[in-house]
Amino acid sequence: MKLAQRGEFGIIAALRQRSAAAPGLITGIGDDCAVIAPQPGEQLLVTSDMLVEGVHFRWDWTDPVRLGRKCASVNLSDLAAMGATPRYLFLALALPGDLDTAILDAFFDGFLSVCGEHGAVLAGGDTCASSAGMTISVTALGSAATGTALLRSGAVAGDALFVSGSLGDSALALQQLLAGKRPESFLAQRHFDPTPRVNLGCALAQTGLATAMIDLSDGLLADLGHLLSASSVGARIEIETLPLSAAFRQALEQNQALIDLALSGGEDYELLFTAPAAAAALLADLAQKSATPITRIGTVLPLVNGLQLFANGQQRPLPAGQGYKHFAGGPESCILGNVCAVQEDAARR
Amino acid sequence: MKLAQRGEFGIIAALRQRSAAAPGLITGIGDDCAVIAPQPGEQLLVTSDMLVEGVHFRWDWTDPVRLGRKCASVNLSDLAAMGATPRYLFLALALPGDLDTAILDAFFDGFLSVCGEHGAVLAGGDTCASSAGMTISVTALGSAATGTALLRSGAVAGDALFVSGSLGDSALALQQLLAGKRPESFLAQRHFDPTPRVNLGCALAQTGLATAMIDLSDGLLADLGHLLSASSVGARIEIETLPLSAAFRQALEQNQALIDLALSGGEDYELLFTAPAAAAALLADLAQKSATPITRIGTVLPLVNGLQLFANGQQRPLPAGQGYKHFAGGPESCILGNVCAVQEDAARR
Repeated sequence: MKLAQRGEFGIIAALRQRSAAAPGLITGIGDDCAVIAPQPGEQLLVTSDMLVEGVHFRWDWTDPVRLGRKCASVNLSDLAAMGATPRYLFLALALPGDLDTAILDAFFDGFLSVCGEHGAVLAGGDTCASSAGMTISVTALGSAATGTALLRSGAVAGDALFVSGSLGDSALALQQLLAGKRPESFLAQRHFDPTPRVNLGCALAQTGLATAMIDLSDGLLADLGHLLSASSVGARIEIETLPLSAAFRQALEQNQALIDLALSGGEDYELLFTAPAAAAALLADLAQKSATPITRIGTVLPLVNGLQLFANGQQRPLPAGQGYKHFAGGPESCILGNVCAVQEDAARR
Repeated sequence: MKLAQRGEFGIIAALRQRSAAAPGLITGIGDDCAVIAPQPGEQLLVTSDMLVEGVHFRWDWTDPVRLGRKCASVNLSDLAAMGATPRYLFLALALPGDLDTAILDAFFDGFLSVCGEHGAVLAGGDTCASSAGMTISVTALGSAATGTALLRSGAVAGDALFVSGSLGDSALALQQLLAGKRPESFLAQRHFDPTPRVNLGCALAQTGLATAMIDLSDGLLADLGHLLSASSVGARIEIETLPLSAAFRQALEQNQALIDLALSGGEDYELLFTAPAAAAALLADLAQKSATPITRIGTVLPLVNGLQLFANGQQRPLPAGQGYKHFAGGPESCILGNVCAVQEDAARR
């Protein structure tokens, strides 16, 4: 069935049937607004992310279930980056009228599966016609005990710099896709179905171990730049300590230049955070409990030092591109750094 | 300057400079999430609305200031429909890279002016490249004293049916635009820069006078259908009591069939609500205080009566189209009832 036959209210009715009850959600889908009763002692955290067909995703590369999952996950990653527990998601969709409803249902399957995995619910949204392609806008609300939300601005010189998971996998998959190759399954999953580090983010906020945190969507150097800028500090990164997956290392053996993908590639959706170096043992324990690897990759320095890269004790220049420019506050060559490659490629087709 | 020269972070920095402090907003633009401290005794209300170039707006008809105003207003109208005070808005934009930054700045001028008029602030969002045209997704958060939010589901048989302002102006303007005519300034303003009935909505919730409420975006009959369906009641409308502007009456004199625009035309952004008939005097007082006309247009009936239209004591058939179909829960002929005309027209160009 085509979307135009089901209609807007058919879509809303179907979603309403699938929406779950949740603590604090007084009224969900089906009225002008959702009504939320905040819990005493909690603050609400709110984030929005938009994904555009031809810019953030291409149907010849992904499928609707994974797309739905990714749309939820990238928002939960922003909540995780401040240590918030995911609660209520709002989904606004601009859809082509000739879209098959089976595709939309599969998209909802993926979106709702990620919500369910993290105890969050779809609480509202909007559905309308698009003039071309599909655009998805998600706003996610999470909660955190008052005063525990981890900002980007709390890093101090002397802190150690940590990152979760591994770096560069998603960017490597994208590079292979753009070259017409099919990434192996681990890399593909990292690109199309990233894992939001919700448990780790919440544990870091609750334990108070971390001093500042951000999630990696624009690339390590770019997002580190945001954190350093917000905290008015510098940092030193030891390249040889960057956590790399087996699949990434294998590709790196063939081409050493790929290390730039771990430094500047986007869409890792890992957590980058700072903590006192003495917290390393407690962090190792926390990594085990949240089943998320944590690796120390550098040290926070006074602002005057700027951002320094070292490889085996030798300083090396910052790669040209996003990371440094963002940090310096200069203009970018395009609106959306790392995804412009996709857009340009799509435009060439 | 083109957008691509300013870059995503240039846009965010500019917005951050223009964002205002607000009660309860602990962290606004510039981190992974906004942090909100709910006030004791208040619930939060959340709504999302998306506007798509070529579907909801055309640049040859509107200008960026009015577009920015409308994007904020349609969301505030949803908050007003439940009696919530507007607080925090989140703005996600997909933008063509060749958009002139002056257009974006004018859009922000409009958007922020409506926020300011209602004591709300821009608290976050997202900016990315579009593959074609501009797509705007707004999520608005409002607050209401616990338990005061006015749902669609509280109408009971015997209640009187009221509507704010006047009906059909926006749809008449759209009809004229589609016919290549330029609507006169009052009608144009009603279409391009609607007034969210925030004061009236909040007053109705706070006084407890209304039993159910909805805002009119899909047309009187369609939205009344939603309210009746949610309340499991029917209703009778007296067509001769529908509030019509002088400009609308003037057009109606030339063409009596235009009355269907007051019944089924979209984007009125007026409030439709039910209240005990005995509340009429108190409502008149409230209309004066909120400087918003209120008109009684009918009566709530038991469910078995369905939706009935009367003109001067004679029952007349429901117009074919959106209103009745939505109420009956049937499929629509297109995704977005009243705006499909715009889309189809845009596609023909």
